Amino acid sequence: MKFNIALLAGDGIGPEVINEAVKVSDAIAKKFNHEITWTPALTGACAIDAVGVPYPDETHEVCMKADAVLFGAIGHPKYDNDPSAPVRPEQGLLLMRKKLGLFANVRPTFTFPSLIDNSPLKRERIEGTDLVFLRELTGGIYFGEKGRKDNGDTAFDNCVYTRAEVQRLAKKGFELAMTRSKKLCCVDKANVLETSRLWRETVQAMEKDYPEVTVSYEFVDAVAMRLVQWPNSYDVLITENLFGDILTDEASVISGSMGLMPSASVGEHTSLYEPIHGSYPQATGLNIANPLATILSAAMMFEDAFGLKEEAEAIRAVVNKSLEQGVVTEDLASKGSKAYKTSEVGDWLVANL
Amino acid sequence: MKFNIALLAGDGIGPEVINEAVKVSDAIAKKFNHEITWTPALTGACAIDAVGVPYPDETHEVCMKADAVLFGAIGHPKYDNDPSAPVRPEQGLLLMRKKLGLFANVRPTFTFPSLIDNSPLKRERIEGTDLVFLRELTGGIYFGEKGRKDNGDTAFDNCVYTRAEVQRLAKKGFELAMTRSKKLCCVDKANVLETSRLWRETVQAMEKDYPEVTVSYEFVDAVAMRLVQWPNSYDVLITENLFGDILTDEASVISGSMGLMPSASVGEHTSLYEPIHGSYPQATGLNIANPLATILSAAMMFEDAFGLKEEAEAIRAVVNKSLEQGVVTEDLASKGSKAYKTSEVGDWLVANL
Ligand SMILES: CC(C)[C@H](C(=O)O)[C@@H](O)C(=O)O
Ligand SMILES: CC(C)[C@H](C(=O)O)[C@@H](O)C(=O)O
Repeated sequence: MKFNIALLAGDGIGPEVINEAVKVSDAIAKKFNHEITWTPALTGACAIDAVGVPYPDETHEVCMKADAVLFGAIGHPKYDNDPSAPVRPEQGLLLMRKKLGLFANVRPTFTFPSLIDNSPLKRERIEGTDLVFLRELTGGIYFGEKGRKDNGDTAFDNCVYTRAEVQRLAKKGFELAMTRSKKLCCVDKANVLETSRLWRETVQAMEKDYPEVTVSYEFVDAVAMRLVQWPNSYDVLITENLFGDILTDEASVISGSMGLMPSASVGEHTSLYEPIHGSYPQATGLNIANPLATILSAAMMFEDAFGLKEEAEAIRAVVNKSLEQGVVTEDLASKGSKAYKTSEVGDWLVANL
Repeated sequence: MKFNIALLAGDGIGPEVINEAVKVSDAIAKKFNHEITWTPALTGACAIDAVGVPYPDETHEVCMKADAVLFGAIGHPKYDNDPSAPVRPEQGLLLMRKKLGLFANVRPTFTFPSLIDNSPLKRERIEGTDLVFLRELTGGIYFGEKGRKDNGDTAFDNCVYTRAEVQRLAKKGFELAMTRSKKLCCVDKANVLETSRLWRETVQAMEKDYPEVTVSYEFVDAVAMRLVQWPNSYDVLITENLFGDILTDEASVISGSMGLMPSASVGEHTSLYEPIHGSYPQATGLNIANPLATILSAAMMFEDAFGLKEEAEAIRAVVNKSLEQGVVTEDLASKGSKAYKTSEVGDWLVANL
């Protein structure tokens, strides 16, 4: 098969981790007789520096024409303490999600047996954890009307959801649950919010179409607790944009493998794959960042965007092997043992594929 | 001194735990020569059953006349799966907060050395944790305009904050920080929300009035992570209503002492003290609920509402003693050792004061 992949390396360590994911993807393509064309494009702070906007039209064109998008990370410290600056990297992210119609953010949290002891949680609490959040990504308070009144002394953000928006996200949730343990949790705040009541009634009405799926409804505050107490009691969770932002980040630290967690954003026009970690500016250019989350995101891309399960499994297998053999960057290296460079990890994976 | 305390026992185990807090408070009053008059009033599901509304005007009168309010818990399973029922216990809670002007919810999270091993987190992660959230409680998306359009197919919730609302909450935060380690963290989502940008700029403008306080600004998703990773890196945190709902519940499970955490809601007309746990319907009437969170809430009341630090310390000391000696309810009893009844714990505390 032939693929055209948009390559959005972004800022900070983005280019370094993307580089390794490209190496590994090319090696897999060669092994399985596929042909990948990579089309790089600018996004984030580097795009602001180059052309004045964080998600240039040209980049959008590249993404729209591609079969999938592989994304690194964006963000630069010069924008960090000024969230009201007129142009910021995050605006590019939100614009990209909206323009590409990426309405569902898929965020798995799972454990690697060899990394369980890195978790802040006790081993017996997280063993067996394997959950997936589906976060709605193009609606809610992120995209509602916002502004000021009373000479700037009153601020407002409107949270809006339509039944159709809930349905298309929930449909993905039910479908995913059918391929797993048939358990779905709808996370809302229906005891307070009208949008949450719309979410709940919409999901309730869809239950009859998936009679095998057991659906539970939990309040966001209760889920924030239970995620820490019994993460392995969850399987597939669906939720709105802001709750998803908070809970998926909370979930990402429980497994002890945060530097390894991939994600996908899927939608109307294309799908995008990215590590959940940020642009880690302090490490930029040092060749020390862990590339595995980006490489595992590429594996998700092979499986979900191109339907190539065997290729994805081959990537995951060699990643597991590197972990078992301690071929890891400094964040995972055990005391006293050698820490590999970002590029050395990539080279090792290619050699061992 | 003479105090008039409104007693809102509420639903489920509320009356049982309140009963023990009254016993202990009366014993403290006797010992230190104070006189307490308790005025019981209805709220929650029991108020709906009795008079059709969850926060009757009569109850409001009682609270307004009191020097402080001691609150148990509200909620009943018959309302659980119907968040759109026309009358629900939580509405009473929100109405009470609004009518009493309880704009700041004070939620400490600390560890008890003897309970650290109950935590889902590893000991080294939580040792020394001692943080306080100040959650804004009468504004934001909880109280903004909400409703439906398009024949019910579109729902909206408006989040609104004024500069004055942020200032009065932040003032409490700065003041509290001055009595502690002079570290304040403002939690927001200023990279996305206009209300968060108002929060951040308002707090930034107040920094000059508290030159000794070091203020940090963190995004809510990052805090949701760091609370699990390094809870003891936080001291005083201030945040808006919905973020506070989620984060304070998350924080409550990290110490392993969730059944012991007290809280206060302070404001314009009076202040209210309550355990952070819920009404625990399954345990109602069994005399097994842990009364310590309510008893420690009474200690907060003595110290903060009445300025009686010695009385508060005496309560905390005897609670510590009961924990050390294993005079605890079944949730805390170690395997094989005796679990005390709710009322037995109260009796023991009174006898040992
Ligand atoms: C950078 C920010 C706008 C973004 C979000 O809130 O969606 C990030 O936190 C994420 O989760 O991808
Ligand atoms: C019951 C509910 C309305 C309430 C809230 O969201 O404020 C509760 O979760 C709390 O934190 O006191």
